[in-house]
Amino acid sequence: MKSYKKELSFNTPHRRDFINITGLVEQCLTESGIGEGLLLCNAMHITASVFINDDESGLHSDFEVWLEKLAPEKPYSQYRHNGAEDNADAHLKRSVMGREVVVAVTNGKLDFGPWERIFYGEFDGKRKKRVLIKIIGE
Amino acid sequence: MKSYKKELSFNTPHRRDFINITGLVEQCLTESGIGEGLLLCNAMHITASVFINDDESGLHSDFEVWLEKLAPEKPYSQYRHNGAEDNADAHLKRSVMGREVVVAVTNGKLDFGPWERIFYGEFDGKRKKRVLIKIIGE
Amino acid sequence: MKSYKKELSFNTPHRRDFINITGLVEQCLTESGIGEGLLLCNAMHITASVFINDDESGLHSDFEVWLEKLAPEKPYSQYRHNGAEDNADAHLKRSVMGREVVVAVTNGKLDFGPWERIFYGEFDGKRKKRVLIKIIGE
Repeated sequence: MKSYKKELSFNTPHRRDFINITGLVEQCLTESGIGEGLLLCNAMHITASVFINDDESGLHSDFEVWLEKLAPEKPYSQYRHNGAEDNADAHLKRSVMGREVVVAVTNGKLDFGPWERIFYGEFDGKRKKRVLIKIIGE
Repeated sequence: MKSYKKELSFNTPHRRDFINITGLVEQCLTESGIGEGLLLCNAMHITASVFINDDESGLHSDFEVWLEKLAPEKPYSQYRHNGAEDNADAHLKRSVMGREVVVAVTNGKLDFGPWERIFYGEFDGKRKKRVLIKIIGE
Repeated sequence: MKSYKKELSFNTPHRRDFINITGLVEQCLTESGIGEGLLLCNAMHITASVFINDDESGLHSDFEVWLEKLAPEKPYSQYRHNGAEDNADAHLKRSVMGREVVVAVTNGKLDFGPWERIFYGEFDGKRKKRVLIKIIGE
């Protein structure tokens, strides 16, 4: 069995952002030399998400509006977590979108359907945060 | 290490449907000959879900009502993703229900609690869509 | 390839509770002797969750209020699943929070960011329920 690990870093200009990281994950897979296995990609921070969906800007704007409806950022005072912090909403938004994805590796490639792309979802940005990629297989 | 991969196809008669695929996944596991490992089962399309819950029709009806409340299908014009498309709500519903499940394989069986069953959750059906099963172990 | 499996049991005093199980999961990892691999930790019951977030009591109180807003427990009659049962809301809450986490194992440790902790989320407690831990690697 082979295993591979890498960390990626992101520092988004806005509090909330979606970044297509599919190409970066594919580079890791190539680097790993693993042909058959499972790939885990997860946010290492609890106010961010890694998820799979469509790379379409209209949809990303819909996600932003929808998540703000489900778990509004403001007023900050509505959340007990906020005090020294103001990011309770980011913890909730990340819970909806998920921490991680697990992807099949087949024949040295991410075994994806036609529109599957991996995104880093930032909900409390403007600072350096990390994503972990771990691959096991052979 | 052994690895196994299979794709299943579904074409549901309605826009939204829940299909119990536990038996199909168990057949794949038997076919794989893997006794100890991890099994990934994921929707290959971004408007569908694979999730684990109860096989109870009242609950499935509750899921339908609840998801329509959280992310209503109509009016289509409320979503920027809709234009050529009308399925923005399906992307959001699938985000709530999740893309994938990872299941322990122990002694050649899905290592499940008493009521765990695997479902394909379709949110934009009436066309052929795929589910991937990948198993690694030995 | 090595594999390891363990079940943990919980019987919470309240209908809903969040329990930090990180230490218990770390003990399993040590016991497994696995240095590089993937660890799956999942609720074996469909009205409970395993998720990763912050060990901060204000945030846990925010989760409770938020989940009650998204999927209220009462009135019981609003859900078709309730009859002999009264736990439809627990199935929905667990769908938001997720069934499972997959964690990278690197150098014999859970490969975590600074604030990642594993929680058992109970949404229909006061009875014995189980969590599964499966680790594969070498």
